[in-house]
Amino acid sequence: MSILVVGSVAFDTVETPFGRAERVLGGSASFFSLAASFFAPVNLVAVVGSDFGEKELEAFRGRPIDLAGLERVDGKTFHWQGKYSLDLNSRDTICTDLNVFEFFEPRIPDAYRASTHVFLGNIDPVLQRRVLDQVERPALVGADTMNFWISGKPRELRETLTRVDILLINDSEARELSGEWSLPKAARAIRAMGPQTLVIKKGEHGVLLFTDGGAFAAPAFPLEHVFDPTGAGDTFAGGFFGYLAAAGRHDDAHLRRAIVVGSTLASYCVEAFSLDRLRTLTRPEIEARYKAFLDLTRFDAL
Amino acid sequence: MSILVVGSVAFDTVETPFGRAERVLGGSASFFSLAASFFAPVNLVAVVGSDFGEKELEAFRGRPIDLAGLERVDGKTFHWQGKYSLDLNSRDTICTDLNVFEFFEPRIPDAYRASTHVFLGNIDPVLQRRVLDQVERPALVGADTMNFWISGKPRELRETLTRVDILLINDSEARELSGEWSLPKAARAIRAMGPQTLVIKKGEHGVLLFTDGGAFAAPAFPLEHVFDPTGAGDTFAGGFFGYLAAAGRHDDAHLRRAIVVGSTLASYCVEAFSLDRLRTLTRPEIEARYKAFLDLTRFDAL
Repeated sequence: MSILVVGSVAFDTVETPFGRAERVLGGSASFFSLAASFFAPVNLVAVVGSDFGEKELEAFRGRPIDLAGLERVDGKTFHWQGKYSLDLNSRDTICTDLNVFEFFEPRIPDAYRASTHVFLGNIDPVLQRRVLDQVERPALVGADTMNFWISGKPRELRETLTRVDILLINDSEARELSGEWSLPKAARAIRAMGPQTLVIKKGEHGVLLFTDGGAFAAPAFPLEHVFDPTGAGDTFAGGFFGYLAAAGRHDDAHLRRAIVVGSTLASYCVEAFSLDRLRTLTRPEIEARYKAFLDLTRFDAL
Repeated sequence: MSILVVGSVAFDTVETPFGRAERVLGGSASFFSLAASFFAPVNLVAVVGSDFGEKELEAFRGRPIDLAGLERVDGKTFHWQGKYSLDLNSRDTICTDLNVFEFFEPRIPDAYRASTHVFLGNIDPVLQRRVLDQVERPALVGADTMNFWISGKPRELRETLTRVDILLINDSEARELSGEWSLPKAARAIRAMGPQTLVIKKGEHGVLLFTDGGAFAAPAFPLEHVFDPTGAGDTFAGGFFGYLAAAGRHDDAHLRRAIVVGSTLASYCVEAFSLDRLRTLTRPEIEARYKAFLDLTRFDAL
């Protein structure tokens, strides 16, 4: 079993009330890969520029993350700069320099084509489809998207969604994609577009899962200190998808556990800048917080 | 065992995208009493005007709700008028006519003084204390408050809180009262003010409970149709407190069940205007949705 992930590898410059991190490793595929690699081997497809060096690659070394698909081209790596509000609940994008990411055309190495699990990070839905055209019948296709594509390429996105098994989006995206305010109604509408399983991420308010079997709600872990929320959603996706790949099953019981595993990884991610906390994270720590999630949510029958 | 509740009984005029209800029965003590009466006898202390008639009292009849403490004075009953946004997620108050409620001075009938459970609805913290001065050692004191008192009478509120066992407030109130954005930090600060148990209501995002035993998180029930959110918080409080009174215990396991019972009642309340849905609600319906909450939140160990 192995996971193919296609997305961004980037430099982030992040300002929070607690400090500033300058040109640190970021990007959806970076967070996803590190989180997923706790559970399953990851094949990473992304593009970086000539300014991306050995120091940045260190974060991926010593883990089951294959970098043959990490293309390096002339130019600068994608750079995002953002500044969070005092309460960390909103952020302003200071700049988005797409650089080499602007012309990203995912090329899937032959060795990756048999990946059992494919995760399409938040890129142009046309490119997401081209990734699927290059792989052999994966057992599970997951995808992320964003408002930019929902409003900018609705027809293309809808076509891509017919080929996606699990869609992971946030609540405002679910509302925009479906035109429904009620999340259960939005879920019904989106699941009719193709994805049998819908995961709606609500940040500090947790996650909702919708399947044929019904709905599942998981809270976010109530943290006293959130240091930097950047990458939490991608880390969630990596933990979620990594757990499913390792399990080799995606029935409701496994999907629910995967949601809590993803929430566990995300709760650690926000404790430090960049991938810093994920890099020191251990399996026993993951298991301990998963148990804490059980305790956080348990109540008995009447 | 019996519950004494002190709060408002009012007329509400409510506009939602689905219709308009003119001068229907509302008020925190009305919703609370009806919800709590499914579990325990309720002693209601409130004030109404001469325009409050037999028709309005009907909602309370045939239930274990004692009305000896419902004072009727010359003048008009408290009237609140509000209009909800299209998504029901915000509301504008059109008018708040306090009328006879402005001069409300809770007088606890002798027969109520031995109530085992006392719930102080959202009124002036000075009046909340005067209620406590009139009762004999209750087993449990619960209270609600609001931003108006948090900013307007902070010293009086703090004094009242030293005599409260369980405080139920919403997330913005918890943040304002504590000066902390992080809810776990806010909870620690507020619990240091007196209430051993803190319940933070987050509307559509569920409820957080903080006790010495740790935190508990319950989602709101994901409803396809919310008709009118008015009274949901007071209904939650009524179900929560009613269940605790009936159980005669408030250890963590009972508090958690009480949170889900309250959420169950609230999820029904919003399905219709005023107390309409609570009036037709049955015990089997409560039990069925409680079971649905179990199913909504269950996941296994890793």
